[in-house]
Amino acid sequence: MNIKNIAILSLIVLVSFSCKQQNKSAKISQSEIQEPTVFAKGKQITNDNFTGNVWLENLVQADSLNQNSVGSVTFEPGARSKWHSHPAGQILLAIDGVGYYQEKGQPKKILRKGDAIKCPADIPHWHGASTDTKFVQVAITGREKGETIWLDAVTDKEYHNEPGI
Amino acid sequence: MNIKNIAILSLIVLVSFSCKQQNKSAKISQSEIQEPTVFAKGKQITNDNFTGNVWLENLVQADSLNQNSVGSVTFEPGARSKWHSHPAGQILLAIDGVGYYQEKGQPKKILRKGDAIKCPADIPHWHGASTDTKFVQVAITGREKGETIWLDAVTDKEYHNEPGI
Repeated sequence: MNIKNIAILSLIVLVSFSCKQQNKSAKISQSEIQEPTVFAKGKQITNDNFTGNVWLENLVQADSLNQNSVGSVTFEPGARSKWHSHPAGQILLAIDGVGYYQEKGQPKKILRKGDAIKCPADIPHWHGASTDTKFVQVAITGREKGETIWLDAVTDKEYHNEPGI
Repeated sequence: MNIKNIAILSLIVLVSFSCKQQNKSAKISQSEIQEPTVFAKGKQITNDNFTGNVWLENLVQADSLNQNSVGSVTFEPGARSKWHSHPAGQILLAIDGVGYYQEKGQPKKILRKGDAIKCPADIPHWHGASTDTKFVQVAITGREKGETIWLDAVTDKEYHNEPGI
């Protein structure tokens, strides 16, 4: 093999290696986005208490030992709950993505990974994903005073309102 | 520049590129291990209710709105709580790594990312990291019947006991 051939071969190997590395990086990124961060995605919710595609993984059922139920909820971009309230309140932990949370009469808040929200008892509120990013939350809901009370759907106008500072 | 020089230059660039990519991958892996999965690591716990190095990030304080406190706890490998009990029970969510959990009189359980444990009220138990992997948990603790009751340290023999199936 002469020097010219070695040069050409080296350049081919270089370009090939570069492409392979780039493909590998792209695959890792895609897989990281689609893999659940911590909890399984669970089953898609089929009742009409939500708008858009939403999944629920039940982690802990309320019972006589502990009256909190805990679940991981995954909202696709644009998906959200109806307005609703909890007789014993709720705690939300933002696990992944970007979400919205709003209490009746208050501006919409943006929730990001690591945020925690305490929703008071009997206060109508809704939560869901932002318009372009999914949202994964853990919901800790006290069941000692009864089940969730479901109210009206969140309109597109309400959903798209500017968040508060 | 003659063909020979091009060949040498190409080989140098190829080797340099390869090394750079490998270094980049190594840096990403190291950063992924050290970065918190979801919540901040918080402050190192300095009281004597724990053995080894343990960090706490308070996420939600119990108050009149909601009597659960929620915190993210990070245990270094080998670190664990003392035996203790909660008058209103506790829920643990395994967020990252590999941990141990044991109730008095029961075999030690292994907890992995995504697991959830319900610890009944007044049952002495302990939790912590495994011997060689850190453990991150979210603890949801009912405060309506009083604060945690701290008991004896977990001995090395207890800590190293074989886990149950």
